[in-house]
Amino acid sequence: MVSNKFFAIVAGVGPGTGRSVAIRFSEAYPVVLLARSPESYNSVVAEINKAGRKAIGITADATDESSLKSAFETIKKELPDLKLAATIYNVRPNSRPSRKPFLELTLEDLDTSLNGNIRGLFNFAQSILPLLLGSVEHSPQPPTLIVTGATASIRGSAKWSVIAAGKSGQRILTQSLAREFGPLGVHVAHAIIDGGIDVPDATHYPRNEGTPDNRISPYAIAESYWYLHTQHKSAFTQELDLRPFIEHF
Amino acid sequence: MVSNKFFAIVAGVGPGTGRSVAIRFSEAYPVVLLARSPESYNSVVAEINKAGRKAIGITADATDESSLKSAFETIKKELPDLKLAATIYNVRPNSRPSRKPFLELTLEDLDTSLNGNIRGLFNFAQSILPLLLGSVEHSPQPPTLIVTGATASIRGSAKWSVIAAGKSGQRILTQSLAREFGPLGVHVAHAIIDGGIDVPDATHYPRNEGTPDNRISPYAIAESYWYLHTQHKSAFTQELDLRPFIEHF
Amino acid sequence: MVSNKFFAIVAGVGPGTGRSVAIRFSEAYPVVLLARSPESYNSVVAEINKAGRKAIGITADATDESSLKSAFETIKKELPDLKLAATIYNVRPNSRPSRKPFLELTLEDLDTSLNGNIRGLFNFAQSILPLLLGSVEHSPQPPTLIVTGATASIRGSAKWSVIAAGKSGQRILTQSLAREFGPLGVHVAHAIIDGGIDVPDATHYPRNEGTPDNRISPYAIAESYWYLHTQHKSAFTQELDLRPFIEHF
Amino acid sequence: MVSNKFFAIVAGVGPGTGRSVAIRFSEAYPVVLLARSPESYNSVVAEINKAGRKAIGITADATDESSLKSAFETIKKELPDLKLAATIYNVRPNSRPSRKPFLELTLEDLDTSLNGNIRGLFNFAQSILPLLLGSVEHSPQPPTLIVTGATASIRGSAKWSVIAAGKSGQRILTQSLAREFGPLGVHVAHAIIDGGIDVPDATHYPRNEGTPDNRISPYAIAESYWYLHTQHKSAFTQELDLRPFIEHF
Repeated sequence: MVSNKFFAIVAGVGPGTGRSVAIRFSEAYPVVLLARSPESYNSVVAEINKAGRKAIGITADATDESSLKSAFETIKKELPDLKLAATIYNVRPNSRPSRKPFLELTLEDLDTSLNGNIRGLFNFAQSILPLLLGSVEHSPQPPTLIVTGATASIRGSAKWSVIAAGKSGQRILTQSLAREFGPLGVHVAHAIIDGGIDVPDATHYPRNEGTPDNRISPYAIAESYWYLHTQHKSAFTQELDLRPFIEHF
Repeated sequence: MVSNKFFAIVAGVGPGTGRSVAIRFSEAYPVVLLARSPESYNSVVAEINKAGRKAIGITADATDESSLKSAFETIKKELPDLKLAATIYNVRPNSRPSRKPFLELTLEDLDTSLNGNIRGLFNFAQSILPLLLGSVEHSPQPPTLIVTGATASIRGSAKWSVIAAGKSGQRILTQSLAREFGPLGVHVAHAIIDGGIDVPDATHYPRNEGTPDNRISPYAIAESYWYLHTQHKSAFTQELDLRPFIEHF
Repeated sequence: MVSNKFFAIVAGVGPGTGRSVAIRFSEAYPVVLLARSPESYNSVVAEINKAGRKAIGITADATDESSLKSAFETIKKELPDLKLAATIYNVRPNSRPSRKPFLELTLEDLDTSLNGNIRGLFNFAQSILPLLLGSVEHSPQPPTLIVTGATASIRGSAKWSVIAAGKSGQRILTQSLAREFGPLGVHVAHAIIDGGIDVPDATHYPRNEGTPDNRISPYAIAESYWYLHTQHKSAFTQELDLRPFIEHF
Repeated sequence: MVSNKFFAIVAGVGPGTGRSVAIRFSEAYPVVLLARSPESYNSVVAEINKAGRKAIGITADATDESSLKSAFETIKKELPDLKLAATIYNVRPNSRPSRKPFLELTLEDLDTSLNGNIRGLFNFAQSILPLLLGSVEHSPQPPTLIVTGATASIRGSAKWSVIAAGKSGQRILTQSLAREFGPLGVHVAHAIIDGGIDVPDATHYPRNEGTPDNRISPYAIAESYWYLHTQHKSAFTQELDLRPFIEHF
């Protein structure tokens, strides 16, 4: 049953992780989807609403303070009586330089990574943490912030320099938030997604079954995020890894 | 509903993690409890059977090859038609030297830690991995081995030398098994339990609610182990940490 | 004897690590000191030149591409025939927010950390790596880039969020460069300075002896950096830690 | 000049690291070489003595308490007035199973690894730490214990299970000793040797130059160990890695 007291926010929505996580959390909460363009969330919002649950899409850029501020004003207007229970930061930088020799990269490539991975999370966390703190006494599950990491979050591979700089900074920022806000009752967790993500067609849900062996099912990621959200406060996970069973690591 | 095709084994049972994990897995599978003395498992076996589910206790010492071999012969006799779906290695060394200056420790203290943490896991893994491999094609969940780690698994603190040597060796052994058996379809996971575990009285189940803020509810650990067992093979977690929300780390 | 074929650059000079490293490397090479203001390098440049060795101070801001570009043009003019053998990135962000609750930090605090720690290193590395590559065949020691890290490079402590985000991103960027440029013959190393640094008065050199037990002697750091620079290419260290013997870690 | 007040011990001597380390430390101290058979140390002892420095070989098995005890009695008799300044634990297990599927390994394979890597270090550390503590006030360099680690010390690769269990337990034991004995003035360090070691012919010393690109020069390892030994107590390194410049990591 969908809550009429709490809602969730998924920042960063595309056809993979963002969509699956939004769908999974919509089984319990109205969900707000944030993305830089409506094309990213429109079909997911429609899919959730069509299923009789509730989703709202808002165009916002987490790397832009005023854009995010305006998004949270819209949220307040649209869901005036709901408290925030769960948030997922799943933003991908605007563009990702492919694996590239360091000397061919530009400062702009670096900034794209720092913006999407670190500055966006900083802004988002500053917006949502006061709301999550306000839910600690009320929420059936500990209020939660989950951040989507990657292999590059813990490893600077050759030619992944700017992506790794952004993802590792994001990871340690998340860890710092976990240490500060955990004792206040907010669960902050980081997931290291170690592998390529399948983009399933939307005809079934959930649809782990069709996932090729070398891909991660985004539905499985969504289940893990939901599990993190429902962990009892006596046993919070700060970090877990997720990878296909055949993945070399 | 309890399976009539698969069973689970919990090696190392006491009133904390072992009991909770056995109870949780007994909701889905008949469970075999291994411990060095019947006193360790008798009440848990009774508790599970009384609840209309199935548990068998077997006295065995995982650090002793022939004792373990005999235990697996008993299992084969008692559950002749069942396949193995899930295993948990939760053995504590026979005795644990308290936090002790290195020069006051004896080789016997070290051996106690190496035996319980590494050699016991080695023997146990050699017994169960062929059975888990035999279940890959059949089990609804990927066949699973979960190992209970601790803070000392990743950190050699002053005066924790022998415990840390055993737990860290155990962790890396588990990691090695994950890398070898994951691609064969067996899920091998390690949980870093970072904090003291509550020993709840047995009147309620589950009973996270009564856990003091500075303790981990063993029921919450059991839920996490169950979650690990049910992860889709496209998104295996190799390691996660679990700690009370107020724990300093 | 000071080389007449190779020189070194120390980016980020103050009375602690930067000064000591510059003095140490000046025993072998003419050194270029980069800092945002002449006050930071003037006395060190004078100290080195007075000792009969060679130092040049250049005002430059590594976080500013054009400022750095202009600095390297000056270097080329001042040391036209020398090749680059060693570089140290020791820049501190312009200002460091003290340990601060996350919700009291501003995006400006974050940017200060990202600029000094990551963007500055990115710019500096793009400037010096082509020069170091050009020295591989000639330099008696493998051409070297050493980056000064900190405890926050590997740990996001509560209330150290923005510093930790910057330092950890810097560390992984360095690691990525090590993996890309090591096989090309350039030694890229990262030093985790875990403790407070003593600022000795300048009357003796070297002067490890006066260092209080809970402080790191910057001369000892300088010796370590020199050791890293002189490692044979068959045994490069990518990372080491440095801390006072009594430091808790 | 070789000290007439202090000596060093190298436990584990063969034609690679052990020999080079013994030679390097013999430039400063009389050295005691411990190995399980005289064949392992005879030629190195001869080489050092022939060079006009001092080496003593003692047959001892660090994994055997009484063998080690007897070795230290011999040391006391042979070098009655010298204090212990530096110790290196470089023991390789008696035999090493090649990379092997887990289910083909025996408990004996595991024990070989645990014995050589963990139990031997435990015995050795219990023997030498009281002596090192007794040198703290006197030794020109902080009394030192250095332990030779490997890639398997931090990574459980597939099919490296028993080696990784031993090496990782050894690493964390070393870390624990560093945390306990560092504040007492003893420097305990761990070196991760990440790559194959060259075995140079003995005609030149030092002879880094002939090392193939994909091998580590044992002389370079020896230099690193000497550097660790000479670090000022205000800037101890607990762990460093060493690998060939072209090594993939």
